[in-house]
Amino acid sequence: MKTLQPAAPQPQVRSQAAQHGCVAIISRQAIAHNVDTIRHRLDQDGQRDGPRLWAVVKADAYGHTLAHVLGGLGKADGLAVLELEEAHLCRAMGWRKPILIMHARYTAADLSDPGLAPLHVVVDNDEQLRHLEALAQRPGPHAWLRYRGSLNHSGFAAAAYRRAYDRLHKLLQAGRLSGLGLLQHYARAEEAEHLREERRDFEAVFAGLPGPRCTENSAALLSDPGYAGSGDWVRSGIALYGISPLAGVDGRGLGLLPAMTLSAPIHDVQLLAAGDPLGYGATFRAAHQLRVGLVHCGYADGYPRNLVAAGTVLVQGRPCRIIGRISMDSITIDLSGHPQASPGTPAVLWGPPDLSVEAVALSAGTIPAQLCVGITGRVPRLAEAAEASGAAGSGSP
Amino acid sequence: MKTLQPAAPQPQVRSQAAQHGCVAIISRQAIAHNVDTIRHRLDQDGQRDGPRLWAVVKADAYGHTLAHVLGGLGKADGLAVLELEEAHLCRAMGWRKPILIMHARYTAADLSDPGLAPLHVVVDNDEQLRHLEALAQRPGPHAWLRYRGSLNHSGFAAAAYRRAYDRLHKLLQAGRLSGLGLLQHYARAEEAEHLREERRDFEAVFAGLPGPRCTENSAALLSDPGYAGSGDWVRSGIALYGISPLAGVDGRGLGLLPAMTLSAPIHDVQLLAAGDPLGYGATFRAAHQLRVGLVHCGYADGYPRNLVAAGTVLVQGRPCRIIGRISMDSITIDLSGHPQASPGTPAVLWGPPDLSVEAVALSAGTIPAQLCVGITGRVPRLAEAAEASGAAGSGSP
Repeated sequence: MKTLQPAAPQPQVRSQAAQHGCVAIISRQAIAHNVDTIRHRLDQDGQRDGPRLWAVVKADAYGHTLAHVLGGLGKADGLAVLELEEAHLCRAMGWRKPILIMHARYTAADLSDPGLAPLHVVVDNDEQLRHLEALAQRPGPHAWLRYRGSLNHSGFAAAAYRRAYDRLHKLLQAGRLSGLGLLQHYARAEEAEHLREERRDFEAVFAGLPGPRCTENSAALLSDPGYAGSGDWVRSGIALYGISPLAGVDGRGLGLLPAMTLSAPIHDVQLLAAGDPLGYGATFRAAHQLRVGLVHCGYADGYPRNLVAAGTVLVQGRPCRIIGRISMDSITIDLSGHPQASPGTPAVLWGPPDLSVEAVALSAGTIPAQLCVGITGRVPRLAEAAEASGAAGSGSP
Repeated sequence: MKTLQPAAPQPQVRSQAAQHGCVAIISRQAIAHNVDTIRHRLDQDGQRDGPRLWAVVKADAYGHTLAHVLGGLGKADGLAVLELEEAHLCRAMGWRKPILIMHARYTAADLSDPGLAPLHVVVDNDEQLRHLEALAQRPGPHAWLRYRGSLNHSGFAAAAYRRAYDRLHKLLQAGRLSGLGLLQHYARAEEAEHLREERRDFEAVFAGLPGPRCTENSAALLSDPGYAGSGDWVRSGIALYGISPLAGVDGRGLGLLPAMTLSAPIHDVQLLAAGDPLGYGATFRAAHQLRVGLVHCGYADGYPRNLVAAGTVLVQGRPCRIIGRISMDSITIDLSGHPQASPGTPAVLWGPPDLSVEAVALSAGTIPAQLCVGITGRVPRLAEAAEASGAAGSGSP
């Protein structure tokens, strides 16, 4: 199937106008900083050649939007996407370095589009093998043969892996592939013992097969940069956005900067008397007189509806507890300690060090990636104001 | 602030091409059926004049998208939105009947735009009152004064309500408003006892104040159509989309038809041996040999990541259990009972009577509205195929 080239979205810059609703401010500088941080981990601060870096930008850059993050990814070696359409979008937006398609069901015709080169593709089943064998164009893409590992989502199990490798190797020798590499994806990279076990497993499968390797993700490369640093390519997704993939430490603890700040203005302020209920289902009742702020962000913006622990926002830099039920378009907060807050005052929902998306995810019983990708279409993603003036012409990847 | 008129999005129609990823199929016919059902409830099957109906289309029609639902809303009397921008979008898409803005912080200039007429606005605080008083244009919009009730989100408390009414009534008498109505929103409409209590409360506040009333929502009008049917305007959101607002009964039980079917194809099939782990964290292990389908839908599409009860999808019309962890781009299902299923076979995630969005929400510990509005931007919304041929020219509101 030939995919039409999509129009490149233009990044919007935060305006000086009063904020009407929920917005996500995206920092290109934070993304660039995180790329540097990951590189320094891998090359031991310049003491060795580190592996090349795939910046994983699937799911519209984990909800940060491609338009805003591309300018910060200039030092990445390639972009990794899920779908063919995303690859076309990255090209339309000016990305010229390699693109890796990780999950698509491509056909030979899809791969023949010269506009996608230099193209890398993951080969994870027999059908994709056959499409590569049917490809007339020379050289074809760089193929990455995926080992199924213990994740068992897709890819070839051990015995089938070697047979598939032989078929691809024939294509490579005939000049019909521009490269052939070995790829796997961890099931439990966050747990040291299982990480080692998975490594022993794929190393046994890969033993004796020539070609570059791409096996390490954010969690693996941050918990054990020594091993990852000796590889050929690594893939990093969540860490690029400043978010820790490891339990017990947030992005800042790993030297990363958060790339997203979610905020929304206070829409209204109400004074509750002692005993007054608040919100749907009257799950909260004021124990004493209370100033309540209605913040213009709800679950239809992507704020988590079910908080399993106390929810907090920041108002004028200080924590403010969420009270009452999260509703579709708003949350309500206790403004007792914030006498200056009034309609229009922004409430920060996550982003700064003292309210990381990791902390909010913990309160919501989920993971930070789910929160970021769950931000809905009605929330504008805007460039950080400090970057706006210098953005023109400087952020091209 | 003058809002630029946005371009009207064009509805996409489901193509005959193989399905590559997760899609939401939206049925305009179901929406039209639900409008009829709600009307019949309110007018006692034509035995009396029922109230007028605001179709609530905030949050891009509860995730169904305006472009797809407008064609089914021809018999509604008006559209209710949250923001000024949404009102402009409805006008750009050809809606000519009234629009109610429920939550905006509008200015006098915003309200003077003749392109928005006939315009209704909720007045829920002093600032909005002042903007209406500053409006030069005559007649101005129809104002709906909001009583704060026990929800306590926004609006005027009892004493302030009467003072605000007097100010608006002066504007009405001077020909500066095209109407003045009384509005409230329930906190606990799903609970019969609390519903009655809230009614006693707002009736006391509204007593003796002339003007049409708009107090009933989906939950109230479906649980007690007798009361709602004698009002002037009602607002219905969730029920329009075929979803029950009441506990213990799904939309079908209320005579409604689901407007959204979410589905995704099986991307890959793996054979697991006894003892094999599956997915991130290896939360599932095969007790015996098992065929597993990887379905191309994950939490980055809006599928709930945390299932609190057994998750199910439909494959070839039959239930199929979800096993392993929900990941960003996929879920894994047990294909033991589905020997015919193969890559490309669609899996239905919610929609049909035997897998309602209400049932999935229950498994996920959330509410159906959260699931629908949580469908992310990468999921195309397509018109139901049966409607496609007859859609041209017939769906204009």
